[in-house]
Amino acid sequence: MSFADQTQFTPLVVCELAEDTKEEAVEWLLSRIKEKQRNGGAEFQVSRLLPALSQDDKKENPNIFLVGASWQRLLIGAEDLGLIKEFSDGSMRTFTYANREDFKDFQGDGDGFLSMAECQLIIKHELDTLRAKQETYVPGYPKIKLYPGKSIVRRMHSKGILLQIFPLHDKEELKRLSSTWYQQIRMAFQPLDDIRRYFGESLALYFGFLEYFTLAMLPMAIIGIPYYFFDWENYDNYVVFAICNLIWTTVMLEMWKRFGACLAYSWGTLSRKKAFEEPRPGFHGVLGHNPVTGREEPVYPNAKRHLRIYLVSLPFVLLCLYVSLCVMMVYFDAEGWVLGLHDVEPTFWTGLLLFLPSIVYAVVIEIMNRLYRYAAEFLTDWENHRLESTYQNHLTLKVLVFNFLNCFASLFYIAFVMQDMPLLRQSLATLLITSQILNQFLEAFLPFWLQKRRNKRVQRNESQTALGSKLPFEKQVMLEADMSTYLGTFDDYLELFLLFGYVSLFSCVYPIAALLVVLNNVTEIYSDALKICQVFKRPFSEPAANIGVWQLAFESMSIIAVVTNCALIGMSPQVKSYFPESESQLILLVVAVEHVFLVLKFILAFVIPDIPKHIQIKLARVEFESMEALKKKKMLEAPATPIKGQ
Amino acid sequence: MSFADQTQFTPLVVCELAEDTKEEAVEWLLSRIKEKQRNGGAEFQVSRLLPALSQDDKKENPNIFLVGASWQRLLIGAEDLGLIKEFSDGSMRTFTYANREDFKDFQGDGDGFLSMAECQLIIKHELDTLRAKQETYVPGYPKIKLYPGKSIVRRMHSKGILLQIFPLHDKEELKRLSSTWYQQIRMAFQPLDDIRRYFGESLALYFGFLEYFTLAMLPMAIIGIPYYFFDWENYDNYVVFAICNLIWTTVMLEMWKRFGACLAYSWGTLSRKKAFEEPRPGFHGVLGHNPVTGREEPVYPNAKRHLRIYLVSLPFVLLCLYVSLCVMMVYFDAEGWVLGLHDVEPTFWTGLLLFLPSIVYAVVIEIMNRLYRYAAEFLTDWENHRLESTYQNHLTLKVLVFNFLNCFASLFYIAFVMQDMPLLRQSLATLLITSQILNQFLEAFLPFWLQKRRNKRVQRNESQTALGSKLPFEKQVMLEADMSTYLGTFDDYLELFLLFGYVSLFSCVYPIAALLVVLNNVTEIYSDALKICQVFKRPFSEPAANIGVWQLAFESMSIIAVVTNCALIGMSPQVKSYFPESESQLILLVVAVEHVFLVLKFILAFVIPDIPKHIQIKLARVEFESMEALKKKKMLEAPATPIKGQ
Repeated sequence: MSFADQTQFTPLVVCELAEDTKEEAVEWLLSRIKEKQRNGGAEFQVSRLLPALSQDDKKENPNIFLVGASWQRLLIGAEDLGLIKEFSDGSMRTFTYANREDFKDFQGDGDGFLSMAECQLIIKHELDTLRAKQETYVPGYPKIKLYPGKSIVRRMHSKGILLQIFPLHDKEELKRLSSTWYQQIRMAFQPLDDIRRYFGESLALYFGFLEYFTLAMLPMAIIGIPYYFFDWENYDNYVVFAICNLIWTTVMLEMWKRFGACLAYSWGTLSRKKAFEEPRPGFHGVLGHNPVTGREEPVYPNAKRHLRIYLVSLPFVLLCLYVSLCVMMVYFDAEGWVLGLHDVEPTFWTGLLLFLPSIVYAVVIEIMNRLYRYAAEFLTDWENHRLESTYQNHLTLKVLVFNFLNCFASLFYIAFVMQDMPLLRQSLATLLITSQILNQFLEAFLPFWLQKRRNKRVQRNESQTALGSKLPFEKQVMLEADMSTYLGTFDDYLELFLLFGYVSLFSCVYPIAALLVVLNNVTEIYSDALKICQVFKRPFSEPAANIGVWQLAFESMSIIAVVTNCALIGMSPQVKSYFPESESQLILLVVAVEHVFLVLKFILAFVIPDIPKHIQIKLARVEFESMEALKKKKMLEAPATPIKGQ
Repeated sequence: MSFADQTQFTPLVVCELAEDTKEEAVEWLLSRIKEKQRNGGAEFQVSRLLPALSQDDKKENPNIFLVGASWQRLLIGAEDLGLIKEFSDGSMRTFTYANREDFKDFQGDGDGFLSMAECQLIIKHELDTLRAKQETYVPGYPKIKLYPGKSIVRRMHSKGILLQIFPLHDKEELKRLSSTWYQQIRMAFQPLDDIRRYFGESLALYFGFLEYFTLAMLPMAIIGIPYYFFDWENYDNYVVFAICNLIWTTVMLEMWKRFGACLAYSWGTLSRKKAFEEPRPGFHGVLGHNPVTGREEPVYPNAKRHLRIYLVSLPFVLLCLYVSLCVMMVYFDAEGWVLGLHDVEPTFWTGLLLFLPSIVYAVVIEIMNRLYRYAAEFLTDWENHRLESTYQNHLTLKVLVFNFLNCFASLFYIAFVMQDMPLLRQSLATLLITSQILNQFLEAFLPFWLQKRRNKRVQRNESQTALGSKLPFEKQVMLEADMSTYLGTFDDYLELFLLFGYVSLFSCVYPIAALLVVLNNVTEIYSDALKICQVFKRPFSEPAANIGVWQLAFESMSIIAVVTNCALIGMSPQVKSYFPESESQLILLVVAVEHVFLVLKFILAFVIPDIPKHIQIKLARVEFESMEALKKKKMLEAPATPIKGQ
């Protein structure tokens, strides 16, 4: 790499400060980063990016720093982080510096033992936990208060001095990954292990889930094709399909847990103990003492938070849901009115008018979704959660409920109030097809095209000075700093969740839905891969043992699917014809079947172990060995003391 | 105690071998128990009970041994067992011998620090884990094979050489406990902490749950009284009562989890890590290697066990359930036939005949229950579970399902097929009242009376030799050895479970049920206390953090209660009168309400944390401190090695 000439270390992470940061603050921060660990520093290597080149282009920020570390420092950091790596006997164990030689793939001084993503995560973690000692404010900024134990980086970030910290791409590695991942269209699984090495467990699990979901959908897609093409399905025959649907969703979700556990085990995150979570940057309160750590930190009473959640957020969310339902009713009224108008006087203009309500409704829904998203973020922020994880959970819940209603309320209305199956099928098709075309365009190809244009502009500028196809390292860093930030897997999961909803809730009236979703997912894999590799800044790797709250969301959806599918079965003319006289008997039967299915689901979830047996055994073995080791250690120490000593 | 004259130690546990045990086996066992720990022994003190007295009464077994241990040995055992005790700062921590001085109530050499029940548990645990070394068979019994690592005590027990191991009562302590617990009738809570000190956590949790359950039932009992006496309830007004019922069961069970967690925390079992579980004594298989420990032990393939469960046990259980249903149908037929006979020709004899079906049915049910219990035990044994806990879970599940059906099937039939509310109410009353009278008589007073008689006989014999009201220690031991063994809390919980079922499922048609259950529970507390203190051998204390599978059972019952209560509401004439024309609309409404209740239940269970906040904080604090201590230890060790050393 060309950068090797300029400094003595491999740069891993970029740290960008505001252009007008006072020099004393910069120096103080750098000194704290470089300082020895025993003095409370991070003991990293830092250098300023291109102080020379800044003359060339006045507009560039001079306060960009590259951070790296020695292998020894990184290995110690890996132990602090509690990374789990493969041991020489094939089991996964928590890495300790003292036993480093016993880990698989550890050679020489440990160069190459940790992946670049792991190194970057270590650096981020250590920077985040760089704490103020006796400083009461950030040098040069007397208004930015500090207290002992406060994370320096977080405070500077929330006050806008520190603009961003991001990990650098490894261009060669990225090229290799891209070529096996998405640049050729071929029949193969995704290189999940390589993705995990480069982007970390959280993203790899997303892509793993996306792939699993696509494959799991295949049987349904195949069953659905004859239903669609051979006209088996005249709204009568869908009972069999609905039953398949129910069994499939349950089994699929249970099996994913096992498959995900296998992945997480092989990546060492399954048994990783969560470190003590720090308060999130936005958390504020009266300075007090944390009841757990005893450290000084802001404290905010739980009761107050609960009041905010139950007296403000909850009513607001319910109100939004109500408004959304009202908008839907207005849409159906408008639709009916327009239809009536066209029936009375069918002209070209009324024909065009027919499309108007749908278009307006789609636009309004999109606007409501955006507005609600802002409101949800604001409210969740205002609820002042102490931990990032609870913040995320509350935000996810809020957004999920609203999106669910917006997407499915009209379908529920058509299915169960209007009981108009042809319309349901038409709406489902429209929603599925437009949403997936729009999404992929807005999500991947548009940003990719914009990024491409920007890159070209930079390259053009560059070609005036140097005539190489490869960008010099400095320019590359600037380019990456300008890319947008990937905001996490939330929107990607949300999209999958809604697609899952379309298929599991209603596909019995539109069996081709599964096929459409499979096709969508295949392109989704490519567009998401492109997006994450080319459009966004490299994200920090995030250790994850499972897909978290999304497992719960998908399972809830599959429970709702039992209810809707049973109801759709009960409404089918075929089933109705068996009970020509007594409607209430039919309803009772449907309810009984529904309850049986729900009970079966719970029994299945209970009987199928979440972690496959062979991994359970491996986990138990490691635990047993550590217990035995502890006992042996005691045997060597204790008996001498007690019985003789006393 | 008079025994102090005879030996140098306080006897804690009694070990009874068969009368005809070969002397070499006895000596070998004793030597292994006495041997130093470093040589693989238990390092306990043992002495034979009354070799002198055996002339006096030829029939007494000479192979009864008393086991005790020094305080140091017991403290080391407490560490092995992972006991959690109160630390000097008020938190609960795992006891370690090295830090013994820092625990609260630790004085001098530790005498009195451990309760007698804890000492007995330690001795039992260490005896159970006394393993064969190079012995290939029990000396004197070449057919009783051993292999390295096999538990000696378990093998001898399963082969009938070792008859029993049981802990001794502490007469003075027991007297004190009895007087505060059940000997006076007064308005006070049970002395749960004392019960736990004497009988261990598992039993104390049972009594805690019994008390909690009784108190939680009080509001329902009070609401039920006016319904019963003022004729509010003409089968119309029970909608309000049913709704109360639903809310109450959910909240009550959620709150119990929190209350139980508080108890378990204060007793140190909440955060206790489960030790590696040994295979249960009855487990057999081909000698192989345990995949977790690597030790030699019998191995039995999981697939074979699953085949046995799903192809034999499951069909058998289903068949039994079916038979039970058939018997019920026969009973209803007979009842109808007898009623018809009486209507046609009402004589004294047909009037007597009216009672016959019920009596025969009750007897048949009782017989079926007993037979089924044997079959269930046999089948679960034959399924060959490796662990005692899975064995217990499978057995509990089998027995529970059958008992549930036997008790409630006829009520369900009356309520939902016959829709005969007066009959339902009458059956409920009969079942509740007879079962509780019968149970308490069979369970406590009969055995107590029998035991009293036996004691008197022994005392009469005794009074011929010595004229003291207090029994000599040796006789006391013999007396305790003769008492029946307490078989665990299963039957007691089962009884509570069925009572809970009567109240939660149907009490809206018979609101006085809750009051009856409260009255029953009050006497149940006294009779159970009497039973455990006076009738049975002292049981070994069993550490338990919660009521285990019963929590699940009670929660399942409360879910079924939602369904039945909603159905009963839907069937009430009051509600029916709102929908005079459309029955199907009524059904749909009831189903909707039921679903709302079920969702609410799940949300409640999700929102109410299982462990109260203040205990969560305490647990987190201990964990955080141990993490910090580990880090500090590393700080002292590591940095010197890596950065300089490399």
